[in-house]
Amino acid sequence: MQAVQTAAKKVGKQSIAFQNPPKIVSTFSIVGPKEGQGPLGKDFDTVLDDSYYGEKTWEKTEAKMVGEAVNNVIQRANLKPENIDYVLAGDLLDQIISTNFGIRDTDIPFFGLYGACSTMAEALTMGAILVDGGYASRVIATASSHFDSAERQYRYPVELGVQRKPTSQWTVTGSGAALLAAEGQGPRIVGATVGKIVDMGVKDPNNMGTAMAPAAADTIAAHLQDFGKSPRDYDLIVSGDLGEIGLSITKELLQKQKIEISDRFYDTGLMIFDRAQGVQAGASGAGCSAVVFSSHLVKELQAGKYKRILLVGTGALLSPVTYQQGESIPSIAHAVSVEM
Amino acid sequence: MQAVQTAAKKVGKQSIAFQNPPKIVSTFSIVGPKEGQGPLGKDFDTVLDDSYYGEKTWEKTEAKMVGEAVNNVIQRANLKPENIDYVLAGDLLDQIISTNFGIRDTDIPFFGLYGACSTMAEALTMGAILVDGGYASRVIATASSHFDSAERQYRYPVELGVQRKPTSQWTVTGSGAALLAAEGQGPRIVGATVGKIVDMGVKDPNNMGTAMAPAAADTIAAHLQDFGKSPRDYDLIVSGDLGEIGLSITKELLQKQKIEISDRFYDTGLMIFDRAQGVQAGASGAGCSAVVFSSHLVKELQAGKYKRILLVGTGALLSPVTYQQGESIPSIAHAVSVEM
Repeated sequence: MQAVQTAAKKVGKQSIAFQNPPKIVSTFSIVGPKEGQGPLGKDFDTVLDDSYYGEKTWEKTEAKMVGEAVNNVIQRANLKPENIDYVLAGDLLDQIISTNFGIRDTDIPFFGLYGACSTMAEALTMGAILVDGGYASRVIATASSHFDSAERQYRYPVELGVQRKPTSQWTVTGSGAALLAAEGQGPRIVGATVGKIVDMGVKDPNNMGTAMAPAAADTIAAHLQDFGKSPRDYDLIVSGDLGEIGLSITKELLQKQKIEISDRFYDTGLMIFDRAQGVQAGASGAGCSAVVFSSHLVKELQAGKYKRILLVGTGALLSPVTYQQGESIPSIAHAVSVEM
Repeated sequence: MQAVQTAAKKVGKQSIAFQNPPKIVSTFSIVGPKEGQGPLGKDFDTVLDDSYYGEKTWEKTEAKMVGEAVNNVIQRANLKPENIDYVLAGDLLDQIISTNFGIRDTDIPFFGLYGACSTMAEALTMGAILVDGGYASRVIATASSHFDSAERQYRYPVELGVQRKPTSQWTVTGSGAALLAAEGQGPRIVGATVGKIVDMGVKDPNNMGTAMAPAAADTIAAHLQDFGKSPRDYDLIVSGDLGEIGLSITKELLQKQKIEISDRFYDTGLMIFDRAQGVQAGASGAGCSAVVFSSHLVKELQAGKYKRILLVGTGALLSPVTYQQGESIPSIAHAVSVEM
């Protein structure tokens, strides 16, 4: 591997400017039937017929989706697993089992991450560092979630039929993967802002948008400050996934800091489902921003609709155990700047 | 921040050679009473009087230990939280809550990791990449575990008094932190080998050493191959934490590949407790290798007893859910080469 040229990479307080921006040379997305029926249905590569995908448990279904996403993102780039240096990945399930089992047979060195719904942005950031810095030629960033496996872990088994609150978000069933490479064609990851844990005391596991909004606002403000940018430098600032309530609070929090992003701020949790699909405040899940980024957003960048977007992965670090112990929900947001 | 000089950093199939080796300028360790009574007791910075540390739940105790470790490792280097660019950390609990809550008030940008007991090695690897590559000036790598919080999550609530098996390992109560910096004095991280998920079908959550051994052997063999080194290049190859059974199997697996490390291979899980302390096959837990590395091992490097060690963090990616679904325990090992 040849030596790479470097300059100042650390920017401001918590950001990184890539000097050799990694290219997203391939993406793959696989989703459940409900996601396939949504507004972005045609953008996904594989839509499952049912929530089981031929497996006996939803945990195994999710792991199978992860394996499919990783294997297909490699094949689509005309590569083999041995051409990939590292996988950076995580999911919502305890011990990130979907990821561990999903990539078990790939034989690719692996960094396990946990950032709840911010995982895809965290994986893209870490992966971009490895490629930009010359530590790797090609890496895969991936994240997943499954509605049924997440509901029974975090809230109630779906079989109970517990009524959902208006503030609830619907966990996406899906896995999205992006292959980042030093060489090749595709949108480039040019910068990243690493989030801090922000906790404003929200305790309701059925209102995660409110818990995540302060972290989203904090990271967006830090990103603009660190890079000396204005929101107008982006065609789209897209969170994943604040939902309707979180999006609205984030806008307000930024307006208090005289930062106006309303005309270009959207959320993957509001893009993936139609409101008629009965998803309350929108979608969520580590798979949500992963599949929307790895399909629709990358396609729109490639098609020239957007020149530059800021993906803001937002994670509610919700724990059923600490919730029952009366604790609040700490949150985090990581931002990745991608341009065509 | 000034530009850094770079050369080939990717070595072999799954390793990294640091061109600007980060220095471990400060460490801190905090452990429970049982660990304090063990052979390394005098090496730890803080030994708790009881397993609660003034908190009402063991989860809160563990989070408090993480906060103490992070704050103290900063103070010991005469720095403040705002001087630290990133924390890289994780623990054994679901959603890595000990870490999330433990560092919530530090206001330091954060990468959340999950690698079970390999977490400290994963954090040191990622942290070293950030400093070596010029993405950060100073980072903290930390990991933790707590016997009581881990037992009730992974096996049985300790109040049940379930008899432990001879193959069981005792989860360490403790948090260890290391501060890596581009400038300063201390042992240097010169290389790393990133592990793959290895699963040989072991299904017994009370026999994790056997599950982890193939991953440990795989990473040690890959490390020596990638760097063209022999075991004699290291004064100590120390896993964390295979326990007695895993250590023995790892030696055998390597001997089959004509790699003989027996005379310099040890395990943090066998160093931290005396056998008379009733810990069956040894210790385990993400905190085990973290506290032994951040105290005893770094001190021995500083004292010149060891010139070069290879820390091999070994993680059993055990999930109570997939165990009940009949799945095996996938494992992973990451290796970090440290020299004085």
